[in-house]
Amino acid sequence: MTRTPGIRVAVSTVIFSLRRTPGDERAAVVLPLVKRTRDPYEGRWALPGGWLDVAENLDAAAARTLAETTGLAPSYLEQLYAFGAVERSPSRVVSIVYWALVRPDEAESAEAQHNVAWFDAASLPPLAFDHAEIVDYALWRLRNKVGYSRIAHGLLPAEFTLAELREVYEAILGRRLDPANFRRQVDTSGTLIPTDDFRTGSHRPARLYRYNHDVELADRGPLPR
Amino acid sequence: MTRTPGIRVAVSTVIFSLRRTPGDERAAVVLPLVKRTRDPYEGRWALPGGWLDVAENLDAAAARTLAETTGLAPSYLEQLYAFGAVERSPSRVVSIVYWALVRPDEAESAEAQHNVAWFDAASLPPLAFDHAEIVDYALWRLRNKVGYSRIAHGLLPAEFTLAELREVYEAILGRRLDPANFRRQVDTSGTLIPTDDFRTGSHRPARLYRYNHDVELADRGPLPR
Repeated sequence: MTRTPGIRVAVSTVIFSLRRTPGDERAAVVLPLVKRTRDPYEGRWALPGGWLDVAENLDAAAARTLAETTGLAPSYLEQLYAFGAVERSPSRVVSIVYWALVRPDEAESAEAQHNVAWFDAASLPPLAFDHAEIVDYALWRLRNKVGYSRIAHGLLPAEFTLAELREVYEAILGRRLDPANFRRQVDTSGTLIPTDDFRTGSHRPARLYRYNHDVELADRGPLPR
Repeated sequence: MTRTPGIRVAVSTVIFSLRRTPGDERAAVVLPLVKRTRDPYEGRWALPGGWLDVAENLDAAAARTLAETTGLAPSYLEQLYAFGAVERSPSRVVSIVYWALVRPDEAESAEAQHNVAWFDAASLPPLAFDHAEIVDYALWRLRNKVGYSRIAHGLLPAEFTLAELREVYEAILGRRLDPANFRRQVDTSGTLIPTDDFRTGSHRPARLYRYNHDVELADRGPLPR
């Protein structure tokens, strides 16, 4: 058996947030990319990440490289997949990829970082390595997971209106949802708890809801938390 | 950034099959383990696996190490999770774990291999490294996945009776299912196609079904196949 000479382990993270542009009907799913300052792919945009340290657990490495490159500390961080194709990099690199959700207000804190910019997931620039394929897979996982878990919570404040929750679903699924049907589905799911507070503003007051915290954000099974 | 000195990459596989024991009401989920012949954990049972070769893709490494240790070439092999805790091994090893399903007739071919034995997933011996935790996670994924994909097909021949399909579900879920309810759920799911053939034997003839192959065994999204 070969002792894996020349194989290095990296950790990368796909971080999704939501951006509302005034005038746009629909919020957009956005993600931060880091401009590479060295070869290979110098000048190209890439996912935030870095090398795994020998004394560091995988999820700690994901959190660390994320903080170093974007300043973000997301509330939800989950392992996505290990990408290890031989030809994905000039040298042999296995990347353990994590994905994370951050609320729009958290995402703004990353804007100021050097060489970091947020992009609409639907119109990305050319990416370094196999990162376009990784983003595609993460988007697919996000769309799937929003259907059977309360993952949308990771993009919302603690209290939110049904219209705000629907906006998250619409952005992730890429299509409009009927408000009455949406309200009915949410009501029967039992995952939301109505509060006594209302959002007031230019529209008529809308009741604020919060998630039922007896339900896990996403069922991760017996994995350590 | 550290260049990952001393981190090695291994690939391991959790292979599930089904064993029917005459007299037992329920089939058992079983998996093959390999007895370790060197330290660390010499003499303990461990998941089949080996080192990733520098010129080898991850799934090719999973298939190769599986064939080398058990002689198995399963029809379904999917990446499960990357386990990389610092203390999981005396030296630093990140294991990319795959999981596979093999039919009972395929599983028998592995019996003859040296140092390989099949164990009931519900009563495993002490395992090397963090392999007990890995098996727990794989079992959880199997139970989850059987609910929303046609994954049970990986444990069945091309044609099967509804009773045989129900037996697979009962073994995975660890509980009896009502035959009439089960038939109704399968009928409305549209995933099965009735054939004109019947299984005859000691019971009254039972119609054989096959899976609708227009549906993927499991939706893997945009990952390469």
